Amino acid sequence: MKTDKLPRVVIVGAGFGGLKTAQKLAHAPVQITLIDRYNYHLFQPLLYQIAIAGLVPSQIAYPLRTIFRRQKNLTFQMGEISAVDFDARYVRTNGSVIAYDYLVLAVGGEANFFGLRAVEENSFQLKSIESATSTRNHLLRMFERASREADPDKRRALLTFVVVGAGPTGVETAGALAELITHVMTKDYPEMDLQESRVLLIEATGSVMAAYPDELRQATMDLLQGKNVEILLNARLTDYNGQRITLADGGHINAYTLIWTAGVRSAELTDRLGVQQAAARRVRVEPSLQLPQHPDVFVIGDAAYVEDKQGQPLPMLATVAQQQAEAAAKNIRKILKGEKPQPFQYKDPGLLATIGRNAAVARIWGLSFSGFIAWVIWVMLHIYRLIGFRNRLVVLINWAWDYFFYDNQVRLITRE
Amino acid sequence: MKTDKLPRVVIVGAGFGGLKTAQKLAHAPVQITLIDRYNYHLFQPLLYQIAIAGLVPSQIAYPLRTIFRRQKNLTFQMGEISAVDFDARYVRTNGSVIAYDYLVLAVGGEANFFGLRAVEENSFQLKSIESATSTRNHLLRMFERASREADPDKRRALLTFVVVGAGPTGVETAGALAELITHVMTKDYPEMDLQESRVLLIEATGSVMAAYPDELRQATMDLLQGKNVEILLNARLTDYNGQRITLADGGHINAYTLIWTAGVRSAELTDRLGVQQAAARRVRVEPSLQLPQHPDVFVIGDAAYVEDKQGQPLPMLATVAQQQAEAAAKNIRKILKGEKPQPFQYKDPGLLATIGRNAAVARIWGLSFSGFIAWVIWVMLHIYRLIGFRNRLVVLINWAWDYFFYDNQVRLITRE
Repeated sequence: MKTDKLPRVVIVGAGFGGLKTAQKLAHAPVQITLIDRYNYHLFQPLLYQIAIAGLVPSQIAYPLRTIFRRQKNLTFQMGEISAVDFDARYVRTNGSVIAYDYLVLAVGGEANFFGLRAVEENSFQLKSIESATSTRNHLLRMFERASREADPDKRRALLTFVVVGAGPTGVETAGALAELITHVMTKDYPEMDLQESRVLLIEATGSVMAAYPDELRQATMDLLQGKNVEILLNARLTDYNGQRITLADGGHINAYTLIWTAGVRSAELTDRLGVQQAAARRVRVEPSLQLPQHPDVFVIGDAAYVEDKQGQPLPMLATVAQQQAEAAAKNIRKILKGEKPQPFQYKDPGLLATIGRNAAVARIWGLSFSGFIAWVIWVMLHIYRLIGFRNRLVVLINWAWDYFFYDNQVRLITRE
Repeated sequence: MKTDKLPRVVIVGAGFGGLKTAQKLAHAPVQITLIDRYNYHLFQPLLYQIAIAGLVPSQIAYPLRTIFRRQKNLTFQMGEISAVDFDARYVRTNGSVIAYDYLVLAVGGEANFFGLRAVEENSFQLKSIESATSTRNHLLRMFERASREADPDKRRALLTFVVVGAGPTGVETAGALAELITHVMTKDYPEMDLQESRVLLIEATGSVMAAYPDELRQATMDLLQGKNVEILLNARLTDYNGQRITLADGGHINAYTLIWTAGVRSAELTDRLGVQQAAARRVRVEPSLQLPQHPDVFVIGDAAYVEDKQGQPLPMLATVAQQQAEAAAKNIRKILKGEKPQPFQYKDPGLLATIGRNAAVARIWGLSFSGFIAWVIWVMLHIYRLIGFRNRLVVLINWAWDYFFYDNQVRLITRE
């Protein structure tokens, strides 16, 4: 067992950051343990497709043991981290204790409700397969209930779908949901008048897609409105009881469905580490992504607070996590060779969001695209980024099918 | 609304029987309401493929509203029947009351544990998407747990998988499970010695596949043993606590997994109808499938007790349900025309079961097949019988892929 003498790298979390770190250390003289509470890597940007019954979980999730079958220096362990001891250098999971020489915390993020507890309890999220599947089951159930509801006010509330937060996830969800209703549900429920149905996108700030340039924000608004999504800007939620939304200006919206995409914060674990935190629970790190006072610990992705050159915190995006993973892996290799770790610098690869079938907005190579061309870029890029050739093939067939026949396949209401 | 004057046919259950009845009445002068507690038709013969992570639910389930989009004389309603009033002629669902002129009860079956309550509580079933998904999650979790279990006895128990009942479902499950372990899990868990793993098939009678001719029973035994499935005949369970099986002869088997396929009985609803019942809760019907004293009610499929010419009860099979559906639909048309309903006669279409990859046994056109030819027949027939061209295409890709690369795709452990 000569590998026993190699430095032990423990990576916590197999999202975009953890996965990339593990892959970048494939040929490093280390012994890696990758820990995740799930046994699969999840392609989170497409979770909203689960919610609108466009894809099924296995198309966007891929078993970690299969991904790493050929990587001999890595062991996967399914488990949840309960504590980390930075001094004794071990992590504790449900059931075992794993010692490390180097630790990479890539624990990801979760929905941030900013203290609105009632909203948190009564709304749906798109952060895991389970929450996205719940959202799908709920959405479909609303149509079934509406189909046998005689009271027109209640029926309208059952058919009012509110998405909160007009970032990329909110915009993509609202656009895809509007299309599902217009092109699929109208056929499945010929007995109902789906003109009664509404999709609302509520945003607390004055614009959709805050990170995008002006012309793409306008294009997003136009594309969404063309799909009958109603956009409410400068509108802030204060309460939701599962049937009625209360806004800060005193207004009310009757809706049985609220999908929350308005905020992300670091996973709860970061609160229990006893380290310095910034906004949204994120862990303050050195420019090299090392934890202050603990140079053998790296924090990357949603869980890490890193500022860009303008002093703004880097967004919680897959591209940030992946670039930080490369930097962390490179710095671990440097330390092993006795070299000094380098500071991380984020290179913005552009922005890209889809708005239902055949329309998207993109900012790539300094250029803005919107409409069909942007959508083609989006489809190709997302299919390319999915792991596993068979998954890509099946997703491609599904999308091609949906594109030509407008028929989402998976409108199953399963019981949880 | 001239359809309001047409006779109302209510069909309860959208399994093989209910679905076929509805389709056969598509051009009849009736107004149909199809009721099911799920919003999809499930291709039950492939449920075991969900359990062994070979297929995903959407590949064997198809939304009912989509199936019946073009059938103008049918309305689907998702709901669970709580009561039937045969005199006042209505069914009661959660929330509504639906009157009928003709009623077709195609409520299907559920697992029969013959009063073994402890076994029922601690074992897994393959009767619904939820139970099959639970089975999959549990199976995969056993490998994860075993991978970090130091105690060899406990590890062996975690890796001992017992299937009870050597009918087609049990044989198919045991065979596919053995292959999953040999060809996929050994690659996913290179650190474990999966020689420790066992698949046992326990059968209370003296033979596997009781309904099959001798030469196919022998072929089944040979094929299963070739895949390292251990077969225990004349073995009857008396108790199971989730970790340890007790047999009638006093023997014990330590196993954390028991999949029960040893019995089927009619759905619980048939107990609450106040009608004459036979073994396994089945409803005694006239040779025309009508309920005695209630000629406007038909009972078909697993829920109906009908004897063949030899006085044996017809088995609970899809082919029986489908043939009875055709007979019931024909008899409803006859009654509408003032003619006399005809007695039902079952035509045995043959028998077919698969035993893992590239082997099956079949009895068709009076001939026995086993091995690869039978498997090719099985694959073609099952893909043909799946509903929806896209589903067939995707399942075909999956199976072709598995066949060439031995790589089941969907080993996701999801939380319920």
